[in-house]
Amino acid sequence: MQLRHVKILGTGKYLPARKVMDEELDRMLGTPAGWVGKITGVGVRHYAGEGETASSMGAKAAEAALAAAGLSFSDIDCLVCTSGTKEQPLPSTAVFIQQAMGQGDSGVPVFDIDSTCLSFLVGLDVMSYMVEAGRYRNVLLVATEIASAGLNYEDKESAALFGDGAAAVIIGPSAAGDPSKILHASLKTYSSGARYSEIAGGGTRLHAQKYTKENSLPYLFHMDGQAIFRKASKLLPEFISEMLTQTDTQMNDFRLVIPHQGSAMAMRLLRKKLGIAEERFLDNTPGHGNTIAASIPMGLHEAIVQGRVQRGDRILFVGTAAGLSLGGMVIDY
Amino acid sequence: MQLRHVKILGTGKYLPARKVMDEELDRMLGTPAGWVGKITGVGVRHYAGEGETASSMGAKAAEAALAAAGLSFSDIDCLVCTSGTKEQPLPSTAVFIQQAMGQGDSGVPVFDIDSTCLSFLVGLDVMSYMVEAGRYRNVLLVATEIASAGLNYEDKESAALFGDGAAAVIIGPSAAGDPSKILHASLKTYSSGARYSEIAGGGTRLHAQKYTKENSLPYLFHMDGQAIFRKASKLLPEFISEMLTQTDTQMNDFRLVIPHQGSAMAMRLLRKKLGIAEERFLDNTPGHGNTIAASIPMGLHEAIVQGRVQRGDRILFVGTAAGLSLGGMVIDY
Repeated sequence: MQLRHVKILGTGKYLPARKVMDEELDRMLGTPAGWVGKITGVGVRHYAGEGETASSMGAKAAEAALAAAGLSFSDIDCLVCTSGTKEQPLPSTAVFIQQAMGQGDSGVPVFDIDSTCLSFLVGLDVMSYMVEAGRYRNVLLVATEIASAGLNYEDKESAALFGDGAAAVIIGPSAAGDPSKILHASLKTYSSGARYSEIAGGGTRLHAQKYTKENSLPYLFHMDGQAIFRKASKLLPEFISEMLTQTDTQMNDFRLVIPHQGSAMAMRLLRKKLGIAEERFLDNTPGHGNTIAASIPMGLHEAIVQGRVQRGDRILFVGTAAGLSLGGMVIDY
Repeated sequence: MQLRHVKILGTGKYLPARKVMDEELDRMLGTPAGWVGKITGVGVRHYAGEGETASSMGAKAAEAALAAAGLSFSDIDCLVCTSGTKEQPLPSTAVFIQQAMGQGDSGVPVFDIDSTCLSFLVGLDVMSYMVEAGRYRNVLLVATEIASAGLNYEDKESAALFGDGAAAVIIGPSAAGDPSKILHASLKTYSSGARYSEIAGGGTRLHAQKYTKENSLPYLFHMDGQAIFRKASKLLPEFISEMLTQTDTQMNDFRLVIPHQGSAMAMRLLRKKLGIAEERFLDNTPGHGNTIAASIPMGLHEAIVQGRVQRGDRILFVGTAAGLSLGGMVIDY
């Protein structure tokens, strides 16, 4: 069963105060003036400041989502952190978000779901079944990322793409007659592309204890953008077409397509390949960059705030993630 | 809704070849002969060998679970890694398990669920709703842990407790008339105890790049066993009693209680406090130690292999995890 009577009750977003302009990055990376802007289309991305953590950022986005939904923390039955990076190896980041929200004695269950850049989409997909079944009524999903902590500034192209930030979404049951629902979701993983993007060091295989300045590269983000793009463009058309068939939807039926903001260039090519009109495609890269798993919920938040989606509008979420995974979801907002 | 017509179809386990006896640990830790054995009750635990990874171990446990269930990988609709530690910060460990199983082009969706020592229990809880709804038919859950990579051998008491290993469980729908089902599950998190056990460094807050030999401690496992025990013994009785009430079950109705093997000493005290008879309590610490999230599915696997549970028997899973979280589940096997 794919249909879930689940509704997005509220969204929130948080961006750290520190702004990093393309020009500043050009200087940091030693690239010609204008290079970062041309390559990334970001303009300005945000980096977490001193003392700012994924959980403190996530808590702020979560508070904003509660306010938007007209709910308080006591209405939340479960908190799931859906980020591609972790604040620390143990325990889960969701624990620290609960703590940062001042709810350390609430007992509200928390855990993390990780599918890198698709973590939010997978979390929304998975948790909606618990909401549909009535196990949890309202679930708070928080994606919060400090990409800047692990970038490799020698790899100019990938370092220029990312920004830090957090987004939160609250879901709950959709009442009878309410048009809001999840129609379909799909996730496919092809681990033949497991190393197209990765941070190899810092887990149990290559432990932080083995870190040396001379061998720092494996502890930083590595991305083979070309390989990802090649594999994704080969697999995505059929992946999308399957979702359209399953939901009896045409591309033009979507009020908005909200993609993972991997890179502006890849998104533009994919948009054309998939035949999505520009005005129906959310480009949230300017001002944010690639915020890993926070990218899709941040796009949703912007679409709502900017009035680009109304209740009942059909939306397509779509993206790729390290794995390599493809993910998509069709909802009526 | 709590009831799910979901059945455990097969289980598997893998222990690395390298055995570490209490005596060897006494020498490593510089403790008097007999100390480790007396404190831990482990006897022998296993450590991953050179080149052995969480994913290679997890793949072996998964293959064993497939064989036990009489299934092949093509019967699996989703693979979820439910470990408390990660092979590398990005992407998810599940990706590498899919790859290690030689299924890199299968497209089978994979992701991680992390609630530290309770990750398997949370994964089983969450994913059973997707099976109940028919979204996925057969789901492969894999918990695989290399605890030894991050232990602090200066903290003798915690270093002595842990072992490496992997366990896998396949779930699928329970046919009409089949007694197998999940009756109830519960998770509660109290992040006021977030730092009772943790690995602070290696994520985005204290990045591996900041590691130095002089400041290595934050990158290693830290545990305040006393604080965990105090908080857990205060909260567990009501937590358990609630589950018994909800399922109209008495402690004596359980054929077996399968606890997270945190430490033999804490388990013994809790068993008495909760009034569980010794013969109905699975003590899997000897030969394994605390294998983090692999501990509960490993206990289940042992119980099945040793014939201590039969189909239809009522089982209680229970444990605590860094967070601090309490988790429990009542199933009819």
